[in-house]
Amino acid sequence: MKRLSTFIILFLFAISCFADISIRQTFLKWELGYAKTASELPSKWIPALVPGAVQLDIAKAEKYEPYYYAEHWKDYSWMEDQFYTYRTSFPKPELNSGERLVFVSKGIDYQFQIFLNGKEILSQEGMFTPVSLDLTDQLKPENELKILVFPAPKIYATPIDRSQASHSVKPAVSYGWDWHPRLIPLGIWDETYLEKRPASFIEDFHVNYTLNQDLSKAEIKLELSGQNLNGLPFIWTLKDENGNEVLKSEGKTELSFANPQLWWTHDQGKSYRYTSTIQLLDASGKIIQTSESKIGFRRIRLVMNQGAWENFNGFPQTRSVPPAQLEINGRKIFCKGTNWVNPEIFPGIISRERYNDLLSLAKEANFNILRVWGGGIVNKESFFELCDEKGILVWQEFPLACNNYSDDAHYLSILKQESTSIINRVKKHPSLAFWCGGNELFNAWSGMTDQSLALRLLNSQCLELDPKTPFIPTSPLMGMGHGNYVFRDLETKEEVFSNMARAHFTTYTEFGMPSPASVEVLKTIIPKEELWPPKPGASWESHHAYKAWVGNTWLCQDIIEDYFGVSTSLEELVANGQLMQCEGYKCIYEEARRQKPYCSMATNWCYQEPWPTAANNSLISYPTILKPAYYAVKNACRPILASAKFSKFKWTEGETFFADLWMLSDLPTDIPGGKVKIKLVAGTSELALLSWDYNPMKANVNQAGPTSRCKLPAWSTDRFKVVLEVEGHPEYNSEYTFAYQPHSVERKRTTPAMNQ
Amino acid sequence: MKRLSTFIILFLFAISCFADISIRQTFLKWELGYAKTASELPSKWIPALVPGAVQLDIAKAEKYEPYYYAEHWKDYSWMEDQFYTYRTSFPKPELNSGERLVFVSKGIDYQFQIFLNGKEILSQEGMFTPVSLDLTDQLKPENELKILVFPAPKIYATPIDRSQASHSVKPAVSYGWDWHPRLIPLGIWDETYLEKRPASFIEDFHVNYTLNQDLSKAEIKLELSGQNLNGLPFIWTLKDENGNEVLKSEGKTELSFANPQLWWTHDQGKSYRYTSTIQLLDASGKIIQTSESKIGFRRIRLVMNQGAWENFNGFPQTRSVPPAQLEINGRKIFCKGTNWVNPEIFPGIISRERYNDLLSLAKEANFNILRVWGGGIVNKESFFELCDEKGILVWQEFPLACNNYSDDAHYLSILKQESTSIINRVKKHPSLAFWCGGNELFNAWSGMTDQSLALRLLNSQCLELDPKTPFIPTSPLMGMGHGNYVFRDLETKEEVFSNMARAHFTTYTEFGMPSPASVEVLKTIIPKEELWPPKPGASWESHHAYKAWVGNTWLCQDIIEDYFGVSTSLEELVANGQLMQCEGYKCIYEEARRQKPYCSMATNWCYQEPWPTAANNSLISYPTILKPAYYAVKNACRPILASAKFSKFKWTEGETFFADLWMLSDLPTDIPGGKVKIKLVAGTSELALLSWDYNPMKANVNQAGPTSRCKLPAWSTDRFKVVLEVEGHPEYNSEYTFAYQPHSVERKRTTPAMNQ
Repeated sequence: MKRLSTFIILFLFAISCFADISIRQTFLKWELGYAKTASELPSKWIPALVPGAVQLDIAKAEKYEPYYYAEHWKDYSWMEDQFYTYRTSFPKPELNSGERLVFVSKGIDYQFQIFLNGKEILSQEGMFTPVSLDLTDQLKPENELKILVFPAPKIYATPIDRSQASHSVKPAVSYGWDWHPRLIPLGIWDETYLEKRPASFIEDFHVNYTLNQDLSKAEIKLELSGQNLNGLPFIWTLKDENGNEVLKSEGKTELSFANPQLWWTHDQGKSYRYTSTIQLLDASGKIIQTSESKIGFRRIRLVMNQGAWENFNGFPQTRSVPPAQLEINGRKIFCKGTNWVNPEIFPGIISRERYNDLLSLAKEANFNILRVWGGGIVNKESFFELCDEKGILVWQEFPLACNNYSDDAHYLSILKQESTSIINRVKKHPSLAFWCGGNELFNAWSGMTDQSLALRLLNSQCLELDPKTPFIPTSPLMGMGHGNYVFRDLETKEEVFSNMARAHFTTYTEFGMPSPASVEVLKTIIPKEELWPPKPGASWESHHAYKAWVGNTWLCQDIIEDYFGVSTSLEELVANGQLMQCEGYKCIYEEARRQKPYCSMATNWCYQEPWPTAANNSLISYPTILKPAYYAVKNACRPILASAKFSKFKWTEGETFFADLWMLSDLPTDIPGGKVKIKLVAGTSELALLSWDYNPMKANVNQAGPTSRCKLPAWSTDRFKVVLEVEGHPEYNSEYTFAYQPHSVERKRTTPAMNQ
Repeated sequence: MKRLSTFIILFLFAISCFADISIRQTFLKWELGYAKTASELPSKWIPALVPGAVQLDIAKAEKYEPYYYAEHWKDYSWMEDQFYTYRTSFPKPELNSGERLVFVSKGIDYQFQIFLNGKEILSQEGMFTPVSLDLTDQLKPENELKILVFPAPKIYATPIDRSQASHSVKPAVSYGWDWHPRLIPLGIWDETYLEKRPASFIEDFHVNYTLNQDLSKAEIKLELSGQNLNGLPFIWTLKDENGNEVLKSEGKTELSFANPQLWWTHDQGKSYRYTSTIQLLDASGKIIQTSESKIGFRRIRLVMNQGAWENFNGFPQTRSVPPAQLEINGRKIFCKGTNWVNPEIFPGIISRERYNDLLSLAKEANFNILRVWGGGIVNKESFFELCDEKGILVWQEFPLACNNYSDDAHYLSILKQESTSIINRVKKHPSLAFWCGGNELFNAWSGMTDQSLALRLLNSQCLELDPKTPFIPTSPLMGMGHGNYVFRDLETKEEVFSNMARAHFTTYTEFGMPSPASVEVLKTIIPKEELWPPKPGASWESHHAYKAWVGNTWLCQDIIEDYFGVSTSLEELVANGQLMQCEGYKCIYEEARRQKPYCSMATNWCYQEPWPTAANNSLISYPTILKPAYYAVKNACRPILASAKFSKFKWTEGETFFADLWMLSDLPTDIPGGKVKIKLVAGTSELALLSWDYNPMKANVNQAGPTSRCKLPAWSTDRFKVVLEVEGHPEYNSEYTFAYQPHSVERKRTTPAMNQ
């Protein structure tokens, strides 16, 4: 066994900026080995990327084909059942009097033991609870640190699916999903280093505040925890965005702060953040630790949706729906957003830059909320810092999804440990909108109920540790709409247009509209010989074009071709599929907005993807390749726009076409009235229909306009556009594309009577 | 001020039987005074009944007319706003070495301070948290104990209604309800005494057990708490019903118990109880305390109702209904029961005998569950002991009802204190089925939601203190049916028969059917000159015959007379009203049973009443006077019966009458097949219809039979009976009465087409 010869010390500033004393963080060089059992020694050692994942290290060292190409992900499957050992060595550093050497890891996935010089110093299950081990008293001149990572947790050997994750707090998605291959990350997945700390040390600091009723004052409680803090003085200051000190405490933990600037989502105001600095002093008054963070003041509540108390369908009656209207700083807002999934299969390699790219795009798409879906991880700190900065709310789920998580004591104890870590970390961020127990847990395929102890525990944990943040046990709840995931229902064939017109929900928390990836993406994942025509059974299927969910998902070639005829090329199929994704998503986002104020939220399934799929509901292909639907949704989510409601997708010559005109506004301010013109465009033909003078628009209130009708003329195209133009405000313009069938007597006969 | 001259000492055994050392309980003689402020001295002292209520003492001393007669309850209203002082005096008793003198009160209603010799020794808000004060070190040769009871808690002075109780853990019912006058009890309401205790003393003892999956073994943890127990030995024994010791522990707190006899509801098996005896020993091995109680072993869960997972109404979809199927010892049972309200306006005077009378009748009525409604008190210990003994389950609500209980810190702290006391007391009883946050809290008139901190707190409290017992936040929940409360809907005029046939709920947790009280009861509450005809505005209205709920409730004379014509006497009105109550209730109980297994529970609103109403939905008039509906419901709840489903109440000559025949069984055992005959009886005429040979009946499974039809003959009566006779089993027979209209051409024209 080769001894590690290199010991690299890097002096870096941590995520929190240390102003007076730099807490030294020493990043170590790691090696990785693996074996079939815990006791067996690894037969060889390979370089390890930390943070990373064991699979990536093996793939690199042993020259595996990339998992995202063709069906190579299958080559990685043996890796989920090995025992992995990370090892590193380092000399005992010089320590000043009282100074401690601490090994810190923000996350090791999933069950592991840590050994120092052959002696076990920690055994832990759970990837979200950071490790902080004081090594000082056990140091030798030369030290070896080992981390033994256990195989992926499985409650049973078969079936090989997500249900294997139902007894652990390991995100279930990696056990295989309808858009995620089976690839279960293991290993060190977040920042990991040695740190020299003073004898007295603040390990956790929280500015716990309560805003008074009219938001004019924050009552602040400073909460410090750490080592040997008893009786030591501290100084806390709050600085505004210009760097001016606005509040200071010398040792007092309770303070009032008058007239705080409030934190708002980006569409409602400024996402104002203050700089909080805590300094720990020793008995002589010397500063021994300085730590800075950004904080924001806001009050978030879930309140009853407007009109929801009045729903009464006679006796016997049941309860009213739970509240799903988000209120920030006393203002009810319409939430527009999306379902965020892991941006990487191996979360260890997600960087702040990767988060930033995706979150910047989310803000540009006019999204003010992300539902962080319970099948995935709880993201790293930089995710929340960026959401704070960009004014995007986070609906944060715990790592439970589509399983019946156990009532047993072991699982509950790990869930309690992990949720404590998660809550205490994430609650500090103003972007946190509410907690949620997990995904689809109260539906048949999960089988959990209100009696499930895991969900009662999470409710209890959130109440104890973060009582001012709302909690919901799962999504969907009563009155929340979930699905559909296709352009038209696979059984009833009802299209999204009529389905949404009939729907009456407090929120639309998940709705999907599939499309194939762009041709350029497809070429990077599907071998040339498989590209055309697409077929189940190989790379297309591995990349979720076939047999992903029910029906021919997610490619749905049959539905696409039912509207536009048999595709003659990959390019044509992709273009038509992507068009339908655009129109379907626009329909849902805009109809949800029209249903405001009873409806208060629309978040599509899903935003991005952790690897390149061949077909999916996502708006962005891996890693950050925008589909046309991204732009369509971005337009549908503009704060103000002209919108129209339609009854179906395909129209025929001579039929009476109609559209209900609307002006939609989620703006927090009033705007003047104006004029909307509607026209139809087919190829080079244009047909002007009515023009509507809309009234001045009240803040955050939509306006319904007239219904425009016309008999569809003869065109030679297979599609036409509806264009809404707002005089003097091209930024409010909208357009929609529909399928068109000329001269079709057959078709007319089967068209149902029009709703005039 | 007259000094109390008498000091009475009574030596009694406490509720728990002390076998070796008798813990002496000294019951004191109390006096009561009152004043407008806390600081003012009472102007006089009157004898006080303890436990009791200040109103009863004043009424007796000052010769008030009884509150239940005419409108005299109004004379008592000033009493809710006074400050009351209880006082007593006693000499310092002789105490052996180390012995302590403790003042115990199991309940003082609602906010109070306790003074010993002029010095405040306790200030408490909350009537459910017992008081246990060690007086020893503050005793003088002569001692005076005073309890200052504050006025009834009110969050604001007006409106004078139940919303005044929304900031306290005081049961809301006494602030006025549609069947309860406004009379707010105050004072000492449960057992109160002095107790000599040894220096070491077990104050609370709990046999905490978990049954294994197949119920063949109980893992027991003994939980002791009290004074100076550290290291003292104890002996615990468990004896079976024959007095044989089956388990013994000498100091071990964890034990296994193989093959426990299980506790069942009376309709499912034996309500088996063991005797648990705990003995505390001093260091020399001498027994210093012995305490006995009865315990039962059972596992209760709320599981999904059969078929509930399969409900799917297309996308977008919401969640599945919460589970409402009660399972005891692995067996799903149909719960038949009723809503229990306070049996007295002043709970202080409820005795074990009063509970026993009402609970014996509940068992005789085939009820296996009582919903103890959140508007009332959490009952005294003897209630639960009797439910344990009789095999009746208790759905226990916390004292929240029809209000929006506050999120504020003070209310939540009292709720936490009170719920801790309630849970730790009641969880010891095998009859406890599940906890519930309170009544109708998620409906518009209450305005609480899943985000209300009080309900999140109660969930958390129950999870922490009693995790093996289910918890629901309120009733109704999604999928549970609540209401109606009249024979036919006041707006749509739809009758209970068709309404119930359309209904599809997991449970029917509240449904009412009003009737006037019997003439003999009415004569005891309504002055002779008001008796006939009934009118709003005076005693009839005070006793809830008018303006109680919506419409002409609860007398509903208009509906009664619509079926049977104008009543010519009180006797006739009462008879017809009581008949409709019988038929309405039979319809609902039997239809709920027919909807098994999706439906799993039927509990009518309400069982009894705390004072004599003139009209109400109750089955029993105050105090224990059975209405005819009691017998009707008792019959509808027989474990096995012939039943029929009807479409309406009034039939006309020549019309085709029809009824769907059923055999209903909730029996835990199979029974052989048999024959049911159906006949119509009008006066002395009988018309035999079909006879049905039903198949052998599987345990707990109903059987649907044929539909019987006939053209109704000419009868001269205004009603007829449908009689179901089961050959050889008259105990399965059923009969139903319907209104009948002979020769009515007019009527026929308006009869809707029959559903054949």
